[in-house]
Amino acid sequence: MKALEEKIIREGIVKKGNILKVDSFLNHQIDVAFLDEMGKEFQTLFQKHPINKILTIEASGIGVAVMTARHFQNVPVVFAKKSKSSNISDELYHTTVESFTHQNTNDVVISKQYLNENDHVLIIDDFLANGCAVLGLIDLIHQAGATVEGIGIVIEKGYQSGGKTIRKLGYHLESLAIIDQMDDEKGEIVFR
Amino acid sequence: MKALEEKIIREGIVKKGNILKVDSFLNHQIDVAFLDEMGKEFQTLFQKHPINKILTIEASGIGVAVMTARHFQNVPVVFAKKSKSSNISDELYHTTVESFTHQNTNDVVISKQYLNENDHVLIIDDFLANGCAVLGLIDLIHQAGATVEGIGIVIEKGYQSGGKTIRKLGYHLESLAIIDQMDDEKGEIVFR
Repeated sequence: MKALEEKIIREGIVKKGNILKVDSFLNHQIDVAFLDEMGKEFQTLFQKHPINKILTIEASGIGVAVMTARHFQNVPVVFAKKSKSSNISDELYHTTVESFTHQNTNDVVISKQYLNENDHVLIIDDFLANGCAVLGLIDLIHQAGATVEGIGIVIEKGYQSGGKTIRKLGYHLESLAIIDQMDDEKGEIVFR
Repeated sequence: MKALEEKIIREGIVKKGNILKVDSFLNHQIDVAFLDEMGKEFQTLFQKHPINKILTIEASGIGVAVMTARHFQNVPVVFAKKSKSSNISDELYHTTVESFTHQNTNDVVISKQYLNENDHVLIIDDFLANGCAVLGLIDLIHQAGATVEGIGIVIEKGYQSGGKTIRKLGYHLESLAIIDQMDDEKGEIVFR
């Protein structure tokens, strides 16, 4: 998505340690009109799939997911929750996700009430790097007996393994921008 | 807002310990069309204020805030972040918020870049109980020299002190539903 690449060039900040900050429109401040455009783009990319639910993970995925749902006739959004306590119960699907950004491990849960075998799910998230968050969400969807229809990512770090892994597994993955190289000293970003 | 009261009666679950679960449309699964109606209602209630930014706190506030921003000509949304580390730095406004639901204390931060003295802010949040989250957000707005134009809450627990405290301070607070009594044994909810 050209407009996204331009926005990343204009507003993104490359930091040491392979960090791309897009706090001006996605991860801290939210540019609502731009999220709406991205949501429309996701609808175009996944329009052939019979999607009846959008799944994301708190917190940064929620804005994009909600604005995307609007373009799928307002299907419900479910956001998986990061659980501090090891919150395992009969009422929850439960998985474990390592966070690259925060360098920790989170228990991630979804109430069984909001995901079941009739669901055809589009996963939406802001970043894809090593793929742990998306693989965790796929695990939760499988536990529910639901179907993964596709995975929509705002920014993929193409030089990390997540995208390759998920495409190899046969999933329909679309990233609105794929970064092939970042240089924190020069502040350079190269897109695929 | 009559439609919200009806939805709470229909879908809300009163649990022991003064907990109201509205996971079916607000706190876990999100009813996007309904959030849009609530956003429209907030616009009507605060239309006389010169609002140029919406402030909320992750995670449950984000969906409502984004859908509300649409009705204010897509003003930017900023979500304050709960910081695990005591993340005090020159680049951040910082405050402390006690969470009633999770019975813990969070450091809450906003980057100075996204809040300043020119901002006229509408605070949006899902629940108001003892008011700690809203008072924390007001503190952050004051640190930035910005103006609190109003506070829009989805569900206020009217029998707790937050609403009274904030109204007494002179702020324009609007809650779409105010609960005066809840009974977890009978599952009853009485609105103001």
